Amino acid sequence: MKLKVIVTPKAAVLDPQGAAVRDAMQHLGMPEVRSVRIGKYLEIELDGDEPGMESRLHRICRDLLSNPVIEDYELKTMSEGGA
Amino acid sequence: MKLKVIVTPKAAVLDPQGAAVRDAMQHLGMPEVRSVRIGKYLEIELDGDEPGMESRLHRICRDLLSNPVIEDYELKTMSEGGA
Repeated sequence: MKLKVIVTPKAAVLDPQGAAVRDAMQHLGMPEVRSVRIGKYLEIELDGDEPGMESRLHRICRDLLSNPVIEDYELKTMSEGGA
Repeated sequence: MKLKVIVTPKAAVLDPQGAAVRDAMQHLGMPEVRSVRIGKYLEIELDGDEPGMESRLHRICRDLLSNPVIEDYELKTMSEGGA
């Protein structure tokens, strides 16, 4: 079983890293860039697929992989073999 | 126009951050975790949609957003309004 987790800063939270990348992109010949927001991307491989695993995964996303005060996360199952 | 860029470490490259998260997940009640790989996730908003923009974006992905020696990137167009 393969999962991906995307952790992004909440819309109301400043993202200085994203602002720096936006400015750099504008200077590197892309003045059309309006905004950039940067988050984390995790690919997780698991053995097995038990019931109850999903809720344990959500708990780990909240407790370990994201900071729920300033970040949102998205948990998706990836098709085997897909990217 | 909204894009997302996912930058991941190449398969042959060690990912110590991913290994640390894998160990932490195993200790936090998920012994089924086999591997974790961590990358970057970028959401980019652009004004307009000119021809030639795609090739400029790929150049910026290579030059600014990823290190092609150790990382791969994936550039995707997001549907407006979608997440």
